[in-house]
Amino acid sequence: MSAPLPGYGTHFGINNIPFGVGSSNAHPHPTCVTRFGDSVIFLHEISDRLKLSAVAGLPSNVFAEASLDAFAALGRQAHQAVRTRLQHAIANDETLSSLPKGAIEPIDQVKMHLPVNVGDFTDMSCSHHHVQNASEAMTGKRSAPPAFFNMPIGYAGRCSSLDISGTPVERPLGQYWAGKPGESEVVFGPSKKMDFELELGCVVGKPVSRKQRVLASQADEHIFGYVLVNDWSARDIQALEMIPLGPLNGKNAGTTVSPWVITPDALRGFKAASPARRQATLPYLCDSGNEAIDVKLEVQVTRPGAETSESQTYCRSNSAWMYWTLKQCLAHQAIAGCGLRTGDLLATGTVSGEGVDEHGCLLEHMRAGEKPPRGYLEDGETVTLTGYCGDGVGFGECVATLEAAKELDG
Amino acid sequence: MSAPLPGYGTHFGINNIPFGVGSSNAHPHPTCVTRFGDSVIFLHEISDRLKLSAVAGLPSNVFAEASLDAFAALGRQAHQAVRTRLQHAIANDETLSSLPKGAIEPIDQVKMHLPVNVGDFTDMSCSHHHVQNASEAMTGKRSAPPAFFNMPIGYAGRCSSLDISGTPVERPLGQYWAGKPGESEVVFGPSKKMDFELELGCVVGKPVSRKQRVLASQADEHIFGYVLVNDWSARDIQALEMIPLGPLNGKNAGTTVSPWVITPDALRGFKAASPARRQATLPYLCDSGNEAIDVKLEVQVTRPGAETSESQTYCRSNSAWMYWTLKQCLAHQAIAGCGLRTGDLLATGTVSGEGVDEHGCLLEHMRAGEKPPRGYLEDGETVTLTGYCGDGVGFGECVATLEAAKELDG
Repeated sequence: MSAPLPGYGTHFGINNIPFGVGSSNAHPHPTCVTRFGDSVIFLHEISDRLKLSAVAGLPSNVFAEASLDAFAALGRQAHQAVRTRLQHAIANDETLSSLPKGAIEPIDQVKMHLPVNVGDFTDMSCSHHHVQNASEAMTGKRSAPPAFFNMPIGYAGRCSSLDISGTPVERPLGQYWAGKPGESEVVFGPSKKMDFELELGCVVGKPVSRKQRVLASQADEHIFGYVLVNDWSARDIQALEMIPLGPLNGKNAGTTVSPWVITPDALRGFKAASPARRQATLPYLCDSGNEAIDVKLEVQVTRPGAETSESQTYCRSNSAWMYWTLKQCLAHQAIAGCGLRTGDLLATGTVSGEGVDEHGCLLEHMRAGEKPPRGYLEDGETVTLTGYCGDGVGFGECVATLEAAKELDG
Repeated sequence: MSAPLPGYGTHFGINNIPFGVGSSNAHPHPTCVTRFGDSVIFLHEISDRLKLSAVAGLPSNVFAEASLDAFAALGRQAHQAVRTRLQHAIANDETLSSLPKGAIEPIDQVKMHLPVNVGDFTDMSCSHHHVQNASEAMTGKRSAPPAFFNMPIGYAGRCSSLDISGTPVERPLGQYWAGKPGESEVVFGPSKKMDFELELGCVVGKPVSRKQRVLASQADEHIFGYVLVNDWSARDIQALEMIPLGPLNGKNAGTTVSPWVITPDALRGFKAASPARRQATLPYLCDSGNEAIDVKLEVQVTRPGAETSESQTYCRSNSAWMYWTLKQCLAHQAIAGCGLRTGDLLATGTVSGEGVDEHGCLLEHMRAGEKPPRGYLEDGETVTLTGYCGDGVGFGECVATLEAAKELDG
């Protein structure tokens, strides 16, 4: 992995061509954009230049909208057609001089927004290393949940607190055990165990109708693209509340999403083998075994007021290490008949390896006998997730700073 | 409780004045409606008659919209002003002869729709009788979750599978233990343990902004109104998947919502004392102790093809029996800073008493030594929830038929 340039320009080469939603002084209303290097291209303004009216089924103002919903819903063929036209327009024109000048702005002049409206957000549990590391930290015993190797288990997350990268997250108030879980007093106050979770997510494009089932092997048809997700977690609040209905407020202070949706087409060259199956996988969840995605993931933590160059690289992980892929997650989510709508977000849960420098969250370090590299997060610390594949294809960053809790004044 | 008339007309007297969204042959586009007796009144068409333009802050076309979102967001004062004008217009005019004729249709000519767009749906666990009955059924031991008396615990539910009353629910496919949980083979197929859950829900009106906290005692300001909810549950799918992240697909086949939003003002005369506190309640969750709502709840189950008159009254319960109120649920949901948006739905979880004829779901009957009145639901059975307060104030019905599972053909 080559070190990303400032601005992560190397993540956005000709082989990437991601989609997002941006605004700026010159473009005060958020509209659909793509990115090449450190340049943001406002797509509606280059529609004529790209002859997008010739793309079958593409509504004429689809990129003037404030979200990618309508474009995402069109399905893979439309996404491929637009991406290919963009690649042709940009090829051999690294300065983008052939495109209308007003349509292009440097990334540092552009404010990015959530790319889609998320109607449902499900966070799955895909990494066997994560669940085993976390189990050992919490119970001393290295085990996986009973259904882990049968299906990607998961919980529904909160949509109202999904944040675009760059938005601060406030340390939540809540109830938690003052000492040992189940044996100490329950107290109320700011969480003392704020954690990050390094995750990959996918955004639904063409919707899955109610009662429609989707095979994992065919799930690409419904995936608009991939993002990075930081599922901030208040471990103390979570520990008290989650028996037996799972996490709620412990996960609700904020969930940070990276701004650029990376298409399955950009990632096609980075397929990898999934870990060997521990048991037979049901047909609806089966794939070729080579559908994992080789995204090199990193977490950096920056102290309050420090330069990014002083960041501590906290963890290196890889999305190909997970037992379940997001295609399998999508198939599993659909099997009960709930349908998936355009913009729905599915995430992988924490992506970890087994090694101590491969823990995608801080909780995993609390294993007995493991010397934690640090405690939970402090106010003012900034957590940056990055993901890079190679050949100019990466995710950029997913970043947020933890703010101090606001007192309860009501 | 007087037996409701056919069509539940007695639930919708002058003291009720609920809000909903309806359409008909004469009104092909769904718009906002109210109901008096068995008459549905299309609100946009009586705006002039009611001089609604004099209501401060009310947009002129707010009732022409296909959801109540914009109206709900205005807050309690606007809701009260409109309700009062409706009551004055209807008082002493039981035939509604003073209203424009085209604005009124009989309920059996009107198709009802989901009243709001639900951005987040949280299902809480408010009934101590339910958790204790359910615990005894599953573990043989009568206990409550560790945090139950500290706060209303809950899980985020699926928004894409919220259904308006009358929509059939399809028995889901999924994975479950063939026999004893944890000790038998995991199999795949249609759920064999389909259950209903008798619940009360509230719809958020004026939004709660991110990081804003709300005291339970002040939560009415953010509650547009109340509905009945049937949180259909596949107990076998749920049992396998829910450790440790809580239920997901076991709850996703469908969640049925009643069409009429009953305002806090209509329910003001039906306040009741909450059960005695088992321990000190934190300030943010405290109320006067008399904020429970006395809604007499019933579940009826009708065999395939049978008349409603042959329904089995399965359970009688009451929302005032619950340990936590929905105002407390709203305060708890907000405390971590996630915000609540207009249209968000919070539900109580199963509302039960301790007696065998007071179980709000079938699972509770599986207690050792208790003779179950019946097994889990069969294909074609119809479940009807009703809720009635008195003096012409009720919820009508929340009804859905269980359909057979569709084979997996993909």
